[in-house]
Amino acid sequence: MSSSDKRQAADTPGHAKIRQMSRGSYDRDLAYEILDQGLVAHCGFIHEDRPMVIPMAYARVGDRVYIHGASTTRIITNNSAGVPASLTVTMIDGLVVARSAFHHSMNYRCAIVHGTARLVEDPSEQIEALAAITDHLLPGRWNECREMMTKEHKATGVLVLEIEHASTKIRTGGPVDDKEDLGTHVWAGTVPVVTALGQALAAADVPDGTPQPASIPAARRKFV
Amino acid sequence: MSSSDKRQAADTPGHAKIRQMSRGSYDRDLAYEILDQGLVAHCGFIHEDRPMVIPMAYARVGDRVYIHGASTTRIITNNSAGVPASLTVTMIDGLVVARSAFHHSMNYRCAIVHGTARLVEDPSEQIEALAAITDHLLPGRWNECREMMTKEHKATGVLVLEIEHASTKIRTGGPVDDKEDLGTHVWAGTVPVVTALGQALAAADVPDGTPQPASIPAARRKFV
Repeated sequence: MSSSDKRQAADTPGHAKIRQMSRGSYDRDLAYEILDQGLVAHCGFIHEDRPMVIPMAYARVGDRVYIHGASTTRIITNNSAGVPASLTVTMIDGLVVARSAFHHSMNYRCAIVHGTARLVEDPSEQIEALAAITDHLLPGRWNECREMMTKEHKATGVLVLEIEHASTKIRTGGPVDDKEDLGTHVWAGTVPVVTALGQALAAADVPDGTPQPASIPAARRKFV
Repeated sequence: MSSSDKRQAADTPGHAKIRQMSRGSYDRDLAYEILDQGLVAHCGFIHEDRPMVIPMAYARVGDRVYIHGASTTRIITNNSAGVPASLTVTMIDGLVVARSAFHHSMNYRCAIVHGTARLVEDPSEQIEALAAITDHLLPGRWNECREMMTKEHKATGVLVLEIEHASTKIRTGGPVDDKEDLGTHVWAGTVPVVTALGQALAAADVPDGTPQPASIPAARRKFV
């Protein structure tokens, strides 16, 4: 996300993989790891000759990504053979503050996959997809819920993106300034960006004594 | 991000605006507010008949969004008249945990803008754009840095997206379950998702005594 990123090489031990690929990579395993860690996917479609980018809940299963796609099914309903689609998952890890404006950047992990998207029509594949999407953020939640009803399945649009191409973009580390700018009394460094789950809050109409289930992250230690 | 979102109406006081628009909106002011709060934009372009979605640093100035676009300038360098583009900024505020899998959702704020993107060629517009992008995440940082050098300006690709259409999608509140599922001892509620800046870390080669400038968020209170 900066012109200077091109020069960036991860320089911390244990990042040999990242250093090898000099920030861009077609390592499918690494892309899948990022997909599996992400919170939301930004899906790209072409609709009436325009690029559409829509945030969606998702989950990866093998070489497929399932997308909870109510709002986009209209794009592909009439394309049973599928349409070209892409999906990008980005996690921002920090702001990189350099001495010069030019070298400001962000630390981030990003996976970009391309493929063909189609509507999931097979009922058993739809169930597998919805279980994966539900469990992606709250592992085990699917089995804590009652079974879905037929009318619910019919009302749910699920898309599958068959991954044909996967790549990653990663930046780590501190600012990379020009030599001439070092030694000046201009502050430089990084500001971490942290995305975390807070303490779960029960809905007001949950009966007293209902236990918080295993899928919901335990209450964090509180500092009062 | 759920089939049940369509039924969702914000029901908390002070959300009259959101209730009025029943989750989707073409309110440009609200879209601009979300753009101004976001960390990263997912930009959509069409390249060789495929949708591309790329995370980028950005800033809004009036009815334009400037994008720090090194990696995408190749897409539009040969299109001085501009290309169709979109830009989506999403903030996830919580996981919505319902009694049924069907009604799981996320709370989020999303702005989607569409328009025409072109390369910024006017030098003074490029400076204004880079200052806005630098200050978007760290207000005031641009003026703390030395002036950019001509070679740096030449090496920096900046795109401008003229906003022709803006919309928002917002979900707030707790789960909206079916009446038949209420009263069961299945836990339901929300899990907050928080994205925050951590404590700034100076680069190892910053001379001792260099003050942390005003643009860098102050150290938070620490709990040891």
